[in-house]
Amino acid sequence: MLPEKTLAWGLSRSCIRELAEYGAGRKKEIGAENVFDFSLGNPSVPSPAVVDQSILDLIRDNIANEEAKASGKAAPAEGFGGSIHGYTTAAGIMSLRQKIADDLNSRFGLNINPGLIYVTCGAAASLTISLKAVLLPDDEVITVAPFFPEYRVFTEGQGGRLVVVPAADDFMIDLDAFAAALTDKTRAVIINSPNNPSGAVLSEACVKGMTDLLKAHEAKTGRTIYLISDEPYREIVYDGVKNPCLLNYYDDAIMCYSFSKSLSVPGERIGYIAVSDKMTDAANVYASIMGAGRCLGYVNPPALFQRVIERSIGQTADITEYKTNRDLLCAGLKELGYEYVEPQGAFYLFVKALEPDAKAFSDRAKAHELLLVPSDDFGCTGYVRLSYCIDKHVIERSMPAFKALMEEYRA
Amino acid sequence: MLPEKTLAWGLSRSCIRELAEYGAGRKKEIGAENVFDFSLGNPSVPSPAVVDQSILDLIRDNIANEEAKASGKAAPAEGFGGSIHGYTTAAGIMSLRQKIADDLNSRFGLNINPGLIYVTCGAAASLTISLKAVLLPDDEVITVAPFFPEYRVFTEGQGGRLVVVPAADDFMIDLDAFAAALTDKTRAVIINSPNNPSGAVLSEACVKGMTDLLKAHEAKTGRTIYLISDEPYREIVYDGVKNPCLLNYYDDAIMCYSFSKSLSVPGERIGYIAVSDKMTDAANVYASIMGAGRCLGYVNPPALFQRVIERSIGQTADITEYKTNRDLLCAGLKELGYEYVEPQGAFYLFVKALEPDAKAFSDRAKAHELLLVPSDDFGCTGYVRLSYCIDKHVIERSMPAFKALMEEYRA
Repeated sequence: MLPEKTLAWGLSRSCIRELAEYGAGRKKEIGAENVFDFSLGNPSVPSPAVVDQSILDLIRDNIANEEAKASGKAAPAEGFGGSIHGYTTAAGIMSLRQKIADDLNSRFGLNINPGLIYVTCGAAASLTISLKAVLLPDDEVITVAPFFPEYRVFTEGQGGRLVVVPAADDFMIDLDAFAAALTDKTRAVIINSPNNPSGAVLSEACVKGMTDLLKAHEAKTGRTIYLISDEPYREIVYDGVKNPCLLNYYDDAIMCYSFSKSLSVPGERIGYIAVSDKMTDAANVYASIMGAGRCLGYVNPPALFQRVIERSIGQTADITEYKTNRDLLCAGLKELGYEYVEPQGAFYLFVKALEPDAKAFSDRAKAHELLLVPSDDFGCTGYVRLSYCIDKHVIERSMPAFKALMEEYRA
Repeated sequence: MLPEKTLAWGLSRSCIRELAEYGAGRKKEIGAENVFDFSLGNPSVPSPAVVDQSILDLIRDNIANEEAKASGKAAPAEGFGGSIHGYTTAAGIMSLRQKIADDLNSRFGLNINPGLIYVTCGAAASLTISLKAVLLPDDEVITVAPFFPEYRVFTEGQGGRLVVVPAADDFMIDLDAFAAALTDKTRAVIINSPNNPSGAVLSEACVKGMTDLLKAHEAKTGRTIYLISDEPYREIVYDGVKNPCLLNYYDDAIMCYSFSKSLSVPGERIGYIAVSDKMTDAANVYASIMGAGRCLGYVNPPALFQRVIERSIGQTADITEYKTNRDLLCAGLKELGYEYVEPQGAFYLFVKALEPDAKAFSDRAKAHELLLVPSDDFGCTGYVRLSYCIDKHVIERSMPAFKALMEEYRA
C-alpha cells in the first residue's frame, strides 16, 4: 500500500553507494592501502582555508553578539533573528544572492539580478526544485546518456518522464538523436557539462546545435522548453578548454549550481538556482521555484553556510590536483591498452569495459580490489566510471591491478 | 503553462512572513523599540553554549586533520570522505542516529533502533518526506485546526488532500468531528502538540480517544493510517504538564522532530524522522522514507551540524524565558479583558480577536504598532496568534498599545 516508486528508490541502492560501501568493508578486511577505490565522487582535496576560517570568525562573532545582547548592547543583525543560526529568507540572504549574481555577471557576461537567484541545499535540491517548478503531469524531460543516475529519480519524483538520448561516441550530443527525441510533451532538458560520468565538456558548436533545435521546437510548438544546466563541475576544466555558459545561448535557461565540488563541501548541502534574465517569463518561473522549494520542505538554505559561502565566492579548492590525477590515470591506462575519451573536466574517467557486460567486468575488477562503477545506471552499456578525486598514490599503486585485469582478459 | 500550485505558493506570501516583513520596514521607519512584533516564531533565546563550542572544536579538529593529511599522517575519518564537510550517508551518520535513538528510548520508553532514525533538514523536510513516503494520489491527510499553514502546502505538494477538523473550544481534538472526517481515503493524520498556534498540549485522554478511533478505522477498513506527530515544540511545555508521546499510543506512528526550537537553530535546518518500532511495516515505511528523501533532493542532512547535534543531544536553550514571557503576556492581556486559553506549551498565545474578522482586527492592531497574525491561515476565524519568543521588554512595553486597542473597540 506504499507508493511503489518511493519504496523502490529506498530499497534499491545506488550502485555507486553500494560499491563504496563494499569498498569500506573491504578496506577493513584487507587494509585501506590494498583497495583501489574509484567509486565515489567525493572531493579529495581539502576546502580552501577561507571555508573553515570563515566558520571560526562567524561563530566567534556570534558568541560575542550573544554576550552583548545578554548585557543589553546588541546591534540588530541581518535576517529575521539576531542569531546567525536563525531563519533566513527562503531564497537566501540578499547579500549572498547579490554576490552570486555579481560573480556570474562578471564571469559570464550575464545580467542577472539577485531577485533571480535562489540559494538551495545543493545541486540535488536545485534540480528537484527546478523540475517541480516547471513540470506538468506526464511532461517529458530529455537528458543525454551517459547521465547522473539520480536525474531519473528526481524527474519521476516530480511527476515527469525521463527521455534518454544516447550521446555520440565522443560524448558530445548526437544532434539527430536529440532532435528526434523532442515531442509535444517535452518540457525540460537537463544538460550536465562537464559531465558526470564521462568528463566531457560540451563544445560551443554542440551547444549551439542543441539550442538551435530547442528554439526551433519552441517556435514550432509554441511550447516553452526549459534548459536546465546542471553545472556542479563548472570550475573543474582542464587544458584551457572553453566551457560555454548555456545561459548565453538560450533564453529559457535555468542554471543549477552547487558549491560541493568547487569548495569541497558536498556534505554541507549548499548551491543555487539562477534563472536567466532573458527568459520571457522569468518572474513567474522564479515564483514557481519559490513555491516548489516551499512545498518540498526547503525552508531556507543552511544559515551558517550561507555566510560562509558569501565569504568564499570566487575561490576554489586546489583543483589542480585533479588534473595531476587525470594525467596519471590516463597515461597509465593508455599504456596498458585501456580505451577512453580523455576527459576535459570533472573528475571522472569513463573507460570501455573489456567485455560487453559492464557489471560482469566490474565484478571481475573487484577480484583485483579495483572498485569501478558499471555504466548501466548511467544509461549506457559497456563502460565503467573511475572517480579520480582520490589520493594520487592510490592511482599509482592501482596500476599493477589494472595490468593484471587486462592480462586476464587477453589470456 | 507553469504548474498552478507551485506558482500560487510562490506568489502568495505566507501571512506570517508578510507581517514580519512589514514589521521590519516599520522598525526602520519609527525605531525598533516602537514596534511590538509578535509575528514570527523565531526562537529568541540563544543556542546553548554547546552548539557554538562544538562548531569551534569540530572546525579546529578538521583544520588539524587536513594539515596532518597534507603531511601524510591522516587517520581515516568516519563517513565517505576524510573531511568533516564531506558527504555522509543519506540517513545521517550512525553515531548521531544511535544517540537520537538512545535519547528517545530513555525519555519515552520506546525501543527504537538507529535503523529507524532518518536525520533530516528540519521539521519541514521531516514532514514532506514522511508524506511523500506514504501518500498515494488523492489520499486524504487529516489535521486539526488551528494548524500550521504549511501543512496544506506540504500535503498538496506531495499529491494529497488536506482535510481540516476544527478543534474543540479548549483546542483539544473534537473526537466526534474527528471520527466523522475519517474516510476510505484517509492515509495520514498530522498532529502537532504542543500546538502552533494555540500552545495547547493534547491530554492523554484526548490522545487515547483519537488513537482508539484510528485503530478502529484501520480495523474496519483494513487500511493503514499513519499518525504523523509533528513535535518541534516537544521540550517547550509549562507547569509540569504531561505531554504524551504518541508512539506509545499508536503503532503506525511516525515522529517528525526538529532541533530548531529546542536548540534555537532554526536556520540550520536539522531534525529527524523516527519510525515506530511497533509499526508492522516499519522496514518498508523506512525504506519509502529513504526513497522519498532521495527523490525530493535531500542527499544528506548538513554534515557539520550532524556532528554538532551529536554533541548537543539532550540539551536545550534556556527555554524558561518562554515561561516568563507567557506569564507576563497572559497576565497583562487578562487584566485588559482579552480572552484566550492559557497555552501549556510552545511559545504562542492564541487570542480572540475583538471582532469576527481576524484580518480586520490585525489591521487595526497594526495602527497601534502591534503585529498580530490573523488566524485565517491557521484554518479558523476570529483569532490572532502572538509569538512570545521575544524580548520580555517588548511584552512589557506593548501593554499600553493593547490597552488602547481594547478601548478603541469598547468605545
